[in-house]
Amino acid sequence: GEMLVPAFSQEEYRARTTRLRQQMAERGIDALLVLNEGNMNYLTGYEGFSDYVPQLVLVCQDEEDPWLILREMDTLCADASSYLPQSHVLSYPEKYIASSQLSAWQPIAGLVRERSPSGCIGVELSGKILGLKGHAALGKSLGTSEFIDADGMISSLKAIKSPAELTYMEQAGKIVDRAMQVGRLAISVGARECDVAATIAHALYAGTPEFPGGTSRSPLVTMPVGSPGAAPHLTWTDGFYKMGCQTNFELGAVRHRYCCALSRTVFLGEPTARSRHVHQACLDGFLAA
Amino acid sequence: GEMLVPAFSQEEYRARTTRLRQQMAERGIDALLVLNEGNMNYLTGYEGFSDYVPQLVLVCQDEEDPWLILREMDTLCADASSYLPQSHVLSYPEKYIASSQLSAWQPIAGLVRERSPSGCIGVELSGKILGLKGHAALGKSLGTSEFIDADGMISSLKAIKSPAELTYMEQAGKIVDRAMQVGRLAISVGARECDVAATIAHALYAGTPEFPGGTSRSPLVTMPVGSPGAAPHLTWTDGFYKMGCQTNFELGAVRHRYCCALSRTVFLGEPTARSRHVHQACLDGFLAA
Repeated sequence: GEMLVPAFSQEEYRARTTRLRQQMAERGIDALLVLNEGNMNYLTGYEGFSDYVPQLVLVCQDEEDPWLILREMDTLCADASSYLPQSHVLSYPEKYIASSQLSAWQPIAGLVRERSPSGCIGVELSGKILGLKGHAALGKSLGTSEFIDADGMISSLKAIKSPAELTYMEQAGKIVDRAMQVGRLAISVGARECDVAATIAHALYAGTPEFPGGTSRSPLVTMPVGSPGAAPHLTWTDGFYKMGCQTNFELGAVRHRYCCALSRTVFLGEPTARSRHVHQACLDGFLAA
Repeated sequence: GEMLVPAFSQEEYRARTTRLRQQMAERGIDALLVLNEGNMNYLTGYEGFSDYVPQLVLVCQDEEDPWLILREMDTLCADASSYLPQSHVLSYPEKYIASSQLSAWQPIAGLVRERSPSGCIGVELSGKILGLKGHAALGKSLGTSEFIDADGMISSLKAIKSPAELTYMEQAGKIVDRAMQVGRLAISVGARECDVAATIAHALYAGTPEFPGGTSRSPLVTMPVGSPGAAPHLTWTDGFYKMGCQTNFELGAVRHRYCCALSRTVFLGEPTARSRHVHQACLDGFLAA
């Protein structure tokens, strides 16, 4: 059937796992449970936006390709988005979803132990879906609560970017630059704040004529308007733009999960002496850093 | 200064906390730690999009208004968005953020114990920011790991909607209806998938002439296109629309965190007999349910 094209080649995905397995060997980890969906995507290409349910990538020390372990419904996403063959996509039944009686960590542990019967297990312990209750259920089902804390292992791999990754980041940079321009032009006295946000969102998703924009789990537009302008992460309100109004844009454009962020302040009318002073101080600090 | 207008009246926020305190009394909880940011917003109006750092609402059995406990930077967001007076917004210093040495749960525990020196404590244990390590740090700092599991208490409050809440939900319904219409109209052979997504995002953010659309932590547009159409939660690709192509839209419009979702399937050209059969079966099932 028709498939999504994974963002990277099979060789690139496999090279990531190879580097990870070297790190695992150094730390005595035979089987690694990767719980962060961004990290799962990094190793396999898997798109699912499903990290509200138990799912993971299992990396075994003695195998070239990792395993995806998902809820049954999401195996379709894996087939469509991951470079892995279907034989490396495992699943647990849907009856484990949203059950107060059953824990999905129990069948997951079974699938892990089939592939690593007695090995030493590393886990991304800060994985948000694991939590306190998940950790207890996983430990019980695996017959051990002695996990090696694998938080940060994949972050350290990601610090070195490949040419293909840099290309996506440059593309995201072009998209965010354009989105900031159209946002600035959309501001005028009497304009609705939401219409400025809508214009920016359109630009972030549409991208450029050469390449499309992508999507994200995180808000891509934060834009506190007016005097809460100093407050981080607020968005727009039900209000209209007025003269003397300040907007602090924090935008992110995305290409295949690679994000480029850009912050700018737009002031409608003549900024106060204090605003100019703060601007100059920020600029001086930035240039000194 | 200029402030955001909280989505609900002070009376409505306080009525929510009153109902919660009744539930707490029934379960013997003297102090409740609300960790889910959606629930924090429900009780106080707080907007911050900061649930990647430790933060919470503290509800004490013997006080009418809850306390917000935030990282220092976010107190500006609370002042701008919450109905609470500044005296009920507490914070811990920024040095606790992203530190490998310090845990923010330590100063948070101090602020909790000042207000509930010896009381029985309830915690939303599935709060994603707490996790395994946070739970250990919080228990150590509070001098107890005997928490009452408060998961689901606020969900049960939310099940009964006020007239003001229903109004926001109706408005979100009008926005999502319009967004689906413009999305459908944007599809044609040769159109880029990303441009259809951009058109929909614009409509979701702009809302209607009467009321603006809102923002969300979750993706508001999922639209698997082509044969991975059966896969849930996928978005658009780098591709173009072709004849015979199916799109499964799952859209959400938001008013003040109240979301209205709508799903529709759009087929470009003449659907196959099988597609028609699946459509009829879904419709029959829906009408029978």
